[in-house]
Amino acid sequence: MSETEALWERYQKYLVVCPSIDVCLDISRMRFDDGFFGRMKGPMDAAFAEMAALEQGAVANPDEKRMVGHYWLRNPALAPTDAIRDAITATRARIVQFALDVHEGVVRPTRAERFTNLLVIGIGGSALGPQFVAGALGSPADPLRPFFFDNTDPDGMDRTLGELGRGLDATLTVVISKSGATKETRNGMLEAKAAYEKAGLRFGAHAVAITQEGSLLDQIAKGEEWITTFPMWDWVGGRTSELSAVGLLPAALQGVDIEAMLDGARDADAVTRRPIVAENPSALLSLMWHFAGEGQGKKAMVVLPYKDRLELFSRYLQQLVMESLGKERDREGRIVHQGLVVYGNKGSTDQHAYVQQLRDGIPNFFVTFIRVHRERQPSAGPPIEVEPGITSGDYLEGFLLGTRQALYENGRDSITLSLKEITARSIGALIAIYERAVGLYASLVGINAYHQPGVEAGKKAAAAVIDLKGKIEQILDEAGAALLDAESVAAAAGTTDVETVHHLLDHLANNPGRRVTKALPDPPEPPGQKGSVLRARFRRG
Amino acid sequence: MSETEALWERYQKYLVVCPSIDVCLDISRMRFDDGFFGRMKGPMDAAFAEMAALEQGAVANPDEKRMVGHYWLRNPALAPTDAIRDAITATRARIVQFALDVHEGVVRPTRAERFTNLLVIGIGGSALGPQFVAGALGSPADPLRPFFFDNTDPDGMDRTLGELGRGLDATLTVVISKSGATKETRNGMLEAKAAYEKAGLRFGAHAVAITQEGSLLDQIAKGEEWITTFPMWDWVGGRTSELSAVGLLPAALQGVDIEAMLDGARDADAVTRRPIVAENPSALLSLMWHFAGEGQGKKAMVVLPYKDRLELFSRYLQQLVMESLGKERDREGRIVHQGLVVYGNKGSTDQHAYVQQLRDGIPNFFVTFIRVHRERQPSAGPPIEVEPGITSGDYLEGFLLGTRQALYENGRDSITLSLKEITARSIGALIAIYERAVGLYASLVGINAYHQPGVEAGKKAAAAVIDLKGKIEQILDEAGAALLDAESVAAAAGTTDVETVHHLLDHLANNPGRRVTKALPDPPEPPGQKGSVLRARFRRG
Repeated sequence: MSETEALWERYQKYLVVCPSIDVCLDISRMRFDDGFFGRMKGPMDAAFAEMAALEQGAVANPDEKRMVGHYWLRNPALAPTDAIRDAITATRARIVQFALDVHEGVVRPTRAERFTNLLVIGIGGSALGPQFVAGALGSPADPLRPFFFDNTDPDGMDRTLGELGRGLDATLTVVISKSGATKETRNGMLEAKAAYEKAGLRFGAHAVAITQEGSLLDQIAKGEEWITTFPMWDWVGGRTSELSAVGLLPAALQGVDIEAMLDGARDADAVTRRPIVAENPSALLSLMWHFAGEGQGKKAMVVLPYKDRLELFSRYLQQLVMESLGKERDREGRIVHQGLVVYGNKGSTDQHAYVQQLRDGIPNFFVTFIRVHRERQPSAGPPIEVEPGITSGDYLEGFLLGTRQALYENGRDSITLSLKEITARSIGALIAIYERAVGLYASLVGINAYHQPGVEAGKKAAAAVIDLKGKIEQILDEAGAALLDAESVAAAAGTTDVETVHHLLDHLANNPGRRVTKALPDPPEPPGQKGSVLRARFRRG
Repeated sequence: MSETEALWERYQKYLVVCPSIDVCLDISRMRFDDGFFGRMKGPMDAAFAEMAALEQGAVANPDEKRMVGHYWLRNPALAPTDAIRDAITATRARIVQFALDVHEGVVRPTRAERFTNLLVIGIGGSALGPQFVAGALGSPADPLRPFFFDNTDPDGMDRTLGELGRGLDATLTVVISKSGATKETRNGMLEAKAAYEKAGLRFGAHAVAITQEGSLLDQIAKGEEWITTFPMWDWVGGRTSELSAVGLLPAALQGVDIEAMLDGARDADAVTRRPIVAENPSALLSLMWHFAGEGQGKKAMVVLPYKDRLELFSRYLQQLVMESLGKERDREGRIVHQGLVVYGNKGSTDQHAYVQQLRDGIPNFFVTFIRVHRERQPSAGPPIEVEPGITSGDYLEGFLLGTRQALYENGRDSITLSLKEITARSIGALIAIYERAVGLYASLVGINAYHQPGVEAGKKAAAAVIDLKGKIEQILDEAGAALLDAESVAAAAGTTDVETVHHLLDHLANNPGRRVTKALPDPPEPPGQKGSVLRARFRRG
């Protein structure tokens, strides 16, 4: 039997076909041996059992003493209490009605007939899902055109506001933050509010909040009489919140059929809940990740969807996978430094960027190809032939198959996940398949996928920097015309961290609006170019 | 001395300040030992010597027998011949004049007063640079708004055309392909041409080519009387072509000051050409990459610019770094499997995605922070305070410093490169610094940075798939109403590769416009869900 024939056998043997969600998974290009599934049976059965307990309302995130309920969002009948079930159902209905009201002009802006733009303010789980879905399902004909503040870069926000221009009149702003304490989102809200006010518009009349009841943001929204508020729940984590109000409201406003998205996820859950590995794409994905990286993330997952609409999927997965799996300790508290790197953009574009390294260079990865059969949207005209009988879409398919083969020949493994088409339903299914794959993999390697303890350190360190920044402003105010260097400012601020003081002073002096003047030392000391930076002195003005 | 004080010492010792280009490089958070630079002196001196020879016109890409001349583009006086010097200078002047003519309506579309949209059709080096620069320097006030076809996805092109809508009347299309043989770009050109013609517009009256003289694309442009053509040269590689016509023309059309961009690159070259490691940011970057990955790419480079405008920089670097460094063999022909993985998006956004893994998880990376002092464009209004005396930009700075510290505490190294502001000049400098860092690193590890032999295999395999696709269409035509399965079609096509035939048939049947009908086996064989896919039969119609 030739290698081609052997591969065709292997393909047929391991292919998973899921007709209810129009998904196929092909793991034939992963070089696991025949004994692999047998060896993994014990851990995999345990993972299925843990997942079943989680779905039934066990406290699956013990650190934070939380249930993990994203699977209930698309099948409220599974929710462990009536209260949760009712909250899911009522919120879904409210979202659908609210979007309808916005589209029909029942809910409308003060200075325009209709809302035609949507500004989503959020970060991490409150932006990546909405961005991915907007990119995957959006079209120029959508009732609202989406824009995002997903950072605390004032220039980035200025640019988005510049694109909106006078369209701010017709812009509905959705602020998403579970606690309301996320500084980037708080800052984005304040920058947006300032822009509305500058345009003579009351912010609250154009704003909706998605937040936990009683949160800081909830209080602001109520105090400022925002249009309305939708809930976030403590049993939905940020990175699995796309099918809660966080993702559903922006999608519904954009015109996406959110019921179809939820149904796709529900049906994918039904397929991937069954503890039969050979027919379960989520289980097989988790096992293939385990195989590729020996359960220790030794190889990166390169995600290559051959479809422009899925360009942001790798970024969405970066959070879902890396924030869930990148952990210092396992559940027994042992130091394990787990993780699984995800990167990628889209094919065939990336073939002209880094596939050179994938084929020839350091073999520290495996690829996930995502293949979409449908070449064009149903509304598109007849296909254009770029050669007799050949379309651009044939080339897309040809490049996928060709690249996969070229990688395989050189010993580089790959998974191929096929979708029939990109619709609200298939995107819901795709999200659900990967959510469960991540949860199962976490069980296989014995970690908690639902907390993120490592994020706190950076936030605390940043808060200390902001605190120091406040002190520096005060010291400069009090010093009047006197020139101070970083060391004397640090001393006055009571810190030994001269370097941070130096960075903050330099930052202020480089921004004309911040009223800090920098004087160069004369002569520069130490000599040479460094002196201008290291020995600079500063004063207010 | 406390660790904070020791770091401040180390920071001062190793800081590189480049006043001529407003760039600082801080390598204090890389844990190299005091002897590192001494040990690397020999290889580094050799790398400088090789770079000097390359700049003087040596054949630095021996496989393809080409000179490597991207440094001449911003300083034509360095070019090794008068002909090259004159070509660079004349092309630059033509680009500036052409952009002026477009802006002033001297060059204008047939059915609108002015060109106001720009559609760039290219892939890899012919798209990533223009996309990066458009993102970094664009504003809503630009004379032309840029759009891209950077793939062969027909739906992606439909969507871009949908965004253009009736604006196609005022769209100037720039097709970029050195040889004209790149299929994705050829397909994009044909799709665009069809769209113009459908709108009753002559494509050539709206099209400009950037290509090598005499190429397939050059012949088409001349034959169809396109507006004009700008040259590509064999001594400029795709991934270092941003400062040739490839990058300069789109930038100039968008309204970017390309002379400033070139000057920034030229001045960065002047700084980084000097063989004094301690004052040379490119040399230090290459040495830090070598240190981090032990000269074998053992750690990935995570690129985190804290600035929305630089969000595409990591994607630009993916090509520049990975296509240059990801090689199977060194220059002596030994198998080395070199490479350096690059990924990242932007801070502080990514802190809410995968920084959890970076701090706590698998320590298989180092970070490059990119810091930009200027918070807002000079045209922006006074800063908005999100707390008394504190701006959104302070938070951006605070998150960078805080995250860097949180990573360092846990043993994760980082480089910090600071720019004063984002301007055409600083973007030119940034590109030049990294171009040279890649070249120097390639010398350090003994590989050819300027070829890409691994890309051919995928292209050839894809061409074989397209060829097979043509045969299948013919077989289906001849079979009439008879239902054929993949195995019989493969036999008729004279191939043992049943799997590829199966994929191609499935693809056709999933696209209504392709006139292929799929019949499911009855009863399905093999039993279960797979049969519907594996045992399907197909016919024309």
